[in-house]
Amino acid sequence: MSSTAGQIIRCRAAVAWEAGKPLVIEQVEVSPPQKHEVRLKILYTSLCHTDVYFWEAKGQNPLFPRIYGHEAGGIVESVGEGVVDLKPGDHVLPVFTGECKDCAHCKSEESNMCDLLRINTDRGVMINDGKSRFSINGKPIYHFVGTSTFSEYTVVHVGSVAKINPLAPLDKVCVLSCGISTGLGATLNVAKPPKGSTVAVFGLGAVGLSAAEGARIAGASRIIGVDLNPSRFEEAKRFGVTEFVNPKDHNKPIQEVIAEMTDGGVDRSIECTGNVDAMISAFECTHDGWGVAVLVGVPHKNAVFKTHPMNLLNERTLKGTFFGNYKPRSDLPSVVEKYMNKELEVEKFITHSVPFSEINKAFEYMLKGEGLRCIIHMEE
Amino acid sequence: MSSTAGQIIRCRAAVAWEAGKPLVIEQVEVSPPQKHEVRLKILYTSLCHTDVYFWEAKGQNPLFPRIYGHEAGGIVESVGEGVVDLKPGDHVLPVFTGECKDCAHCKSEESNMCDLLRINTDRGVMINDGKSRFSINGKPIYHFVGTSTFSEYTVVHVGSVAKINPLAPLDKVCVLSCGISTGLGATLNVAKPPKGSTVAVFGLGAVGLSAAEGARIAGASRIIGVDLNPSRFEEAKRFGVTEFVNPKDHNKPIQEVIAEMTDGGVDRSIECTGNVDAMISAFECTHDGWGVAVLVGVPHKNAVFKTHPMNLLNERTLKGTFFGNYKPRSDLPSVVEKYMNKELEVEKFITHSVPFSEINKAFEYMLKGEGLRCIIHMEE
Repeated sequence: MSSTAGQIIRCRAAVAWEAGKPLVIEQVEVSPPQKHEVRLKILYTSLCHTDVYFWEAKGQNPLFPRIYGHEAGGIVESVGEGVVDLKPGDHVLPVFTGECKDCAHCKSEESNMCDLLRINTDRGVMINDGKSRFSINGKPIYHFVGTSTFSEYTVVHVGSVAKINPLAPLDKVCVLSCGISTGLGATLNVAKPPKGSTVAVFGLGAVGLSAAEGARIAGASRIIGVDLNPSRFEEAKRFGVTEFVNPKDHNKPIQEVIAEMTDGGVDRSIECTGNVDAMISAFECTHDGWGVAVLVGVPHKNAVFKTHPMNLLNERTLKGTFFGNYKPRSDLPSVVEKYMNKELEVEKFITHSVPFSEINKAFEYMLKGEGLRCIIHMEE
Repeated sequence: MSSTAGQIIRCRAAVAWEAGKPLVIEQVEVSPPQKHEVRLKILYTSLCHTDVYFWEAKGQNPLFPRIYGHEAGGIVESVGEGVVDLKPGDHVLPVFTGECKDCAHCKSEESNMCDLLRINTDRGVMINDGKSRFSINGKPIYHFVGTSTFSEYTVVHVGSVAKINPLAPLDKVCVLSCGISTGLGATLNVAKPPKGSTVAVFGLGAVGLSAAEGARIAGASRIIGVDLNPSRFEEAKRFGVTEFVNPKDHNKPIQEVIAEMTDGGVDRSIECTGNVDAMISAFECTHDGWGVAVLVGVPHKNAVFKTHPMNLLNERTLKGTFFGNYKPRSDLPSVVEKYMNKELEVEKFITHSVPFSEINKAFEYMLKGEGLRCIIHMEE
């Protein structure tokens, strides 16, 4: 039992007071975990586009003040009532979507979209009592996707915490709690390219490059990267991308260009931009008879996916995935093991690091499109 | 070696001289099979919508005079050069789409869309020499989808012939060479409903009912039949359909009705009408997390499938199938065995029979929507 168990912890957190304004490092009070909750000491967190997207709150429900952050690694400080799967000292990854192990989705082998703990970007409180565990001078500060890892301590539902190998370096594997697993799982769990197959990846950001990394691990013979930004290609080569196609370089639909490059189409394609036209291209560039397209990128709310149904009847498959179809608690430990046994290369995703006090620099890197992942060190 | 091998055979065939006009039983000359061809004595043939569709030639390429027919059972009379897999006397089902065993599709475990022998409704000749094997007084009569089974003898590419168990009654299993296998395979090979799952079937014609039969065989707990014609329901019960939904009875989208009936959606759905709105409903009525929709019905050439991409990202799968994903030569023998071991019930699809001389009656039954399959007996 840690000496802080059951006590309020005073610690530093990066608070977003207003949409789009720099975070402010504040002293916050973090309440003890309640029933089915755990309190974590966060050691490393990284910044993901989703944090930036909801912090900008352009068209999103604004919910402030709020503590963002959902890619992180930490150690269990204390556990609330009824928690039996975790104990203080366990090394963990908090996850933005959970696994209650009790709903129809958790009981299905095919789904990871837990009814109880599925991502909820509008909720800023804990589900147990509808209240926040964070406060400043008694004023509550909202949570974000149940994780709020831009804080030295945070409280999380036990269903949103993956217990991992304590030997895994948290400053590296923290990136596996969101983006990298999303792309990797889209390829390995959903697209499942056979060894020697051809794979197209649309969008070469961190998620697309992790999808490419998945294709490299699966033994794809050709990995075709598609992006509007030609500067992405050099970096993409390190993730196994063998060819690069820029839609701006062609005056015909990119699905036709790819079909010509691949004698009728790729075996698998993975869409990581969220642009609906890219989704349609990603689907239509697959080979008839066996092509599988997997949608990962989150679309605009008014987007419409359109295709001629014969593209489907000619035995193509179209699927979407959420968090790479990984069940957070059941499956993330094995993703960490892929890193530990050197199958998965995580270091190449980490392009920057900053101390917690300079967290706003991480936002600047991402807004400029510089690098892939910036690790924020909580202990300076 | 049969006494007719290498000789022209004079026999009866039902010739379509003009679009939409009754067939005429004529004496035709059937040339011997050439390289990689076999000549079959047809014993039983049945009528499928596709025959009627191309015979009506409304908007289709008209190609007359022509001998239709593609669901049939027969016996090999003689074989051409290079044919090693078949010999005279073998019991066979000719198939409208073939399996060369040599192209990328045939070599793929996932596809049955043979590059060489894939269905071609515009071609009226043999691929070996671009000529017809049928003639009347020297004037060629066109083939249909490489089978032309409305003739006592026909010539077929060896890749379009499935050799089956000689104990199987050809007057029953002849219906397995097209529609019944298409629906059955859509369920068993593509949708793959787990035991106890819920399945929706859109369109309760012969293909839809065979999809339902597949769901019954797979052990589905609920099979929801969707059709605009309420008279179909009584018949559908014999194929395992447990509930019936008529879109005309509801003033909201049928996908919402089905989602309400099934606590969020069915586990699997199979679309057998070809109507694009039904395709969209069939997709959107599946459960998030694990729902799989399979498109079977052939759409209008200008149809556009539209859906919000979030329906995909919420882990639904959309696939199409052609001939139930069965490879004709490799897989049809095992479908016949499913009938032989009483797993699959074929008799209930056979609602009428006529002698060959009355083949136009079979067209009348289908045009009136009477019954499911009419068996045409070549020997009267």
